[in-house]
Amino acid sequence: MALSIIPLTGIPMIHEGDDLSEIIAEAAKNQGLQLLDRDILVVTQKIVSKAEGRRVKLDEVEPSSFARHIGETMEKDPRVAEAVLRETARIIGMKRRALIVETRHGHVCANAGVDFSNVEDGYITLLPVDPDASARKIREGLGQITGVKPAVIITDTWGRAWRLGQVDFAIGVAGMSPFRDYRGEQDMMGHTLHATNIAVVDELAAAAELVKGKTEGVPVVLIRGYDYPEGDGRASDLIRPLEEDLFR
Amino acid sequence: MALSIIPLTGIPMIHEGDDLSEIIAEAAKNQGLQLLDRDILVVTQKIVSKAEGRRVKLDEVEPSSFARHIGETMEKDPRVAEAVLRETARIIGMKRRALIVETRHGHVCANAGVDFSNVEDGYITLLPVDPDASARKIREGLGQITGVKPAVIITDTWGRAWRLGQVDFAIGVAGMSPFRDYRGEQDMMGHTLHATNIAVVDELAAAAELVKGKTEGVPVVLIRGYDYPEGDGRASDLIRPLEEDLFR
Repeated sequence: MALSIIPLTGIPMIHEGDDLSEIIAEAAKNQGLQLLDRDILVVTQKIVSKAEGRRVKLDEVEPSSFARHIGETMEKDPRVAEAVLRETARIIGMKRRALIVETRHGHVCANAGVDFSNVEDGYITLLPVDPDASARKIREGLGQITGVKPAVIITDTWGRAWRLGQVDFAIGVAGMSPFRDYRGEQDMMGHTLHATNIAVVDELAAAAELVKGKTEGVPVVLIRGYDYPEGDGRASDLIRPLEEDLFR
Repeated sequence: MALSIIPLTGIPMIHEGDDLSEIIAEAAKNQGLQLLDRDILVVTQKIVSKAEGRRVKLDEVEPSSFARHIGETMEKDPRVAEAVLRETARIIGMKRRALIVETRHGHVCANAGVDFSNVEDGYITLLPVDPDASARKIREGLGQITGVKPAVIITDTWGRAWRLGQVDFAIGVAGMSPFRDYRGEQDMMGHTLHATNIAVVDELAAAAELVKGKTEGVPVVLIRGYDYPEGDGRASDLIRPLEEDLFR
């Protein structure tokens, strides 16, 4: 009934072409953990991007005119600004050093998820091209290696409207529904719930962050004991259509 | 190293004047759990509101002119609309049946947290007047009864900008900092982190929701094994000043 959030230790530095399913299966085994069908593996975007070669050498980026302007006015490296713009569908806000955008996937975050942390000097990482597909690939690979198919969630750390601080969000999902939908069910008093539809993959992403930290090299977390909603959902299902968004 | 999210079962229906510290201590004891100093107790707003008498009989609410207009145009009970307006500092968005507001605490959520679920017919609940004070009171009470003072987080379930579905957020905090601040620390590659400041109380709130459900009557969750950031923080510290909010 209790839920366990277990950091997978011993994941090495990831390089382009590495097989994450193999590396995760090996790390779990070395830790004495046998993967179960109803487990959930929460994988940090950074290692997925590295394995998929979504790393860019800054010296090879030619900034556009707009990127150079952003560089000058926002104290950014114009090559980084260019990399961000290439990942961007729409700019939501730009002020001082902050550049909040809607990515080509439809997610809203700072710098389109372009990031320096835990990557070699002179390089940046981009978000995976299709994080839902990345999650499915890891899940299929784990199925082939271990014989069981846990749900897989890929996460990144983003700021939010209205609230300070960042939390981890789901950007890719495989093997479960992103939502636990209570609509039509009854509460303890027999009232029918009309609006309650919980984004459980975001809650699982947030829960996993608590044992990952940012500086200790724990990019994968096993969540055990959560009876997740079945389904073939995607993190892209979480994107709220603009015309339905009253929270802005 | 792993983190456990443990539902406290056997919490009875809560009424005005009930001592939540006593009830939580009793429930933990009956479940064979001895509270530890570094435990975190995550408490659903609904039982705090009930214990504090933040329950309103709809028949006793006289709707204002604006509330009657909202009632007519948004298919709401005008008495509910009035109760919402009395809790509201600012209306963020109103469309069809959705009324998103900034509460008098400064939090942004639907209907100012006014809610029908798990309360008797003809009544609604309001958010606690000062949820940070409510959390401190529960913590102090637990300290007196058990001799240890866990951190306490009070939570509610809200929608978000940009993303569909709701997640649980922290609305009251006692005994810890709401943030794990990495700014100034170094990543695995030796780069200094400049922006990373994780809203861990929101992540803990989200994690706890996973074992609460909405229909099973689990309003309190024990989180064990999380090395939370020390401090005397409040959930109100999470409110982002308007002029710094580029996420809207």
